[in-house]
Amino acid sequence: MSDGPPDPQGWACPLPLRDHPTVVAGHGGGGRLTADLVRHLFLPAFAPATDPTGPLRRLADAAVVPMPGAGRLALTTDAHVVRPRFFPGGSLGELAVNGTVNDLAMVGARPVLLSAGFVLEEGLELAELDVLARRMGAAAATAGVELVAGDTKVVGVGQGDGVYVTTAGVGVVADGVDLGPHRMTPGDVVVVSGPIGRHGIAVLSVREGLEFGADVCSDCAPLARPVQALLAAGVAVHALRDPTRGGLAATLNELAEASGLGVVITERDVPVPDVVRAACGFLGLDPFEVANEGCFVAVLARPDADRALEVLRADPVTTGAAVIGEVVAEHPGLVVARTGIGGTRVVDLPLGEQLPRIC
Amino acid sequence: MSDGPPDPQGWACPLPLRDHPTVVAGHGGGGRLTADLVRHLFLPAFAPATDPTGPLRRLADAAVVPMPGAGRLALTTDAHVVRPRFFPGGSLGELAVNGTVNDLAMVGARPVLLSAGFVLEEGLELAELDVLARRMGAAAATAGVELVAGDTKVVGVGQGDGVYVTTAGVGVVADGVDLGPHRMTPGDVVVVSGPIGRHGIAVLSVREGLEFGADVCSDCAPLARPVQALLAAGVAVHALRDPTRGGLAATLNELAEASGLGVVITERDVPVPDVVRAACGFLGLDPFEVANEGCFVAVLARPDADRALEVLRADPVTTGAAVIGEVVAEHPGLVVARTGIGGTRVVDLPLGEQLPRIC
Repeated sequence: MSDGPPDPQGWACPLPLRDHPTVVAGHGGGGRLTADLVRHLFLPAFAPATDPTGPLRRLADAAVVPMPGAGRLALTTDAHVVRPRFFPGGSLGELAVNGTVNDLAMVGARPVLLSAGFVLEEGLELAELDVLARRMGAAAATAGVELVAGDTKVVGVGQGDGVYVTTAGVGVVADGVDLGPHRMTPGDVVVVSGPIGRHGIAVLSVREGLEFGADVCSDCAPLARPVQALLAAGVAVHALRDPTRGGLAATLNELAEASGLGVVITERDVPVPDVVRAACGFLGLDPFEVANEGCFVAVLARPDADRALEVLRADPVTTGAAVIGEVVAEHPGLVVARTGIGGTRVVDLPLGEQLPRIC
Repeated sequence: MSDGPPDPQGWACPLPLRDHPTVVAGHGGGGRLTADLVRHLFLPAFAPATDPTGPLRRLADAAVVPMPGAGRLALTTDAHVVRPRFFPGGSLGELAVNGTVNDLAMVGARPVLLSAGFVLEEGLELAELDVLARRMGAAAATAGVELVAGDTKVVGVGQGDGVYVTTAGVGVVADGVDLGPHRMTPGDVVVVSGPIGRHGIAVLSVREGLEFGADVCSDCAPLARPVQALLAAGVAVHALRDPTRGGLAATLNELAEASGLGVVITERDVPVPDVVRAACGFLGLDPFEVANEGCFVAVLARPDADRALEVLRADPVTTGAAVIGEVVAEHPGLVVARTGIGGTRVVDLPLGEQLPRIC
């Protein structure tokens, strides 16, 4: 360890980041730029190159780690910087809990513990912080997790934006549960657990003062219950991922890339609420790239598809579940959509940030 | 859950916070104001009032939680906002790892897993982020923990300050280990593991461009090894706490208050490096209130004091260990210092922030 500031001249990071010598909004967008940052900067720093199968290198929503004499635990973290902090259907408070709980759910873990670190900007109304904290407490109770540890730091005016909350979550993974892109196989069906695009459009509606604000609520909700129901029903779930930043497009691309398989979806089978479709048309956004906070993509064995839909539709959070596509051996790493007029198009990984500070 | 912004008029938080309707720097100082915020705002929001012995209400450095079929885990989190990010003896990188590792150590846990959530400000040099990430990776390797989960968010210029890192840590607590103020008893000795005040003065020296900058290094270091050595040696450790924000004064007051016992220290027995004493004199600071990042306070059974010092002095991180006082039945909740001239003074809990953004 040498003291003093770093020497940018001596920096030898691989090429992709050289195009952007400084952090840009897109590095937080959940798309290509975020992936570059993680792969080329954080992974070499954190994960020993000698351990290509280590928990961090799997780039899952949560790390699953065998603990000595303690079964398998899942650990995940999310920083939450959503703006504005209150939006139709939720707030930073619910988001900070559900975002982390859902990352645990996506590896098949039962969420148990939560911690929260707050970075407060001087001048924040304590009354607002109180409301956000109570929303967090209520969301934790709903999700069945216990908030057991916290920390608070204060920064000066202009060094923050009211409040940022970083939550970490610990879950327990039952014996035999092993989810991830490595389990995917050609012929698997791709299910989405509910209509997409609501969170991003709800946040945007408040931020931009748009008229459709009253018509769309964030889908922000905890997802562990329907996931556990799928597992309890014996559905052969192979991989789960929640399409937050970067939306369905980013999630499907991550699954295709990590599995080395192709994904084909049928556009008209993807549930997109009318208000989301209208808002996206108006704003020039692709609903497939809009963030969600209360739905997930499940890849599962084809024979179990009907049973999976039945289980999901029985849970109020996932009544809108639908099969949207399948896993194929062709075009490995690529996501292709069958369009309404009988053609196909490639669904690309979004480059950067469509809607900054969406979660 | 109701939508829309909170109504400050309808807010009914207990009185102490009413004096400060907005967040002030002192709420992050680790003193009285921080304690008020935690007790009167976060605890009612997060911890069910029906569970007065729940892990959050113990207000320990880390929560210790029995996991179903998985022994006892410790979970803790810390947000790190130190300014500047590089200082003699360390950086935000080492701090983000050691701060969290040490909180696990303070409940007697063996640190195992770490997560990191980054809030990056647009415009941050990626070369600097790379250096910080590598420092984190190296510090994690030194501390013997594995960084397994992370998240990155980007905020606009003027909504952050380069980079904030919130780490969470998971540790394993061995059978029979039960540390905390509830274990303290009159007659226990109070040990400090090394000289105090170095971290705060090191950071301040860079921030203010003071001349003694070359002479003082932060004590930033991982503390689990010496703690585990104490436990392995069979020393009857009753309580541990690391005097970070708010310094030794805050830590001793927290121990006194939580135990319902008094603490008496002898001022001249507290190891304060000359350079720290000189800098504090110059700046009008109390060395007892200056932050540390690599030492801890141990309360232990008097017959084990010599053995404890022997064990600690054998570890390079804690060679400066010293007995500084004792636990008494008198003046419950109060910390009293015997001064050099034969008098006594009350060592109060600092009110707010002596040095903002010290960790």
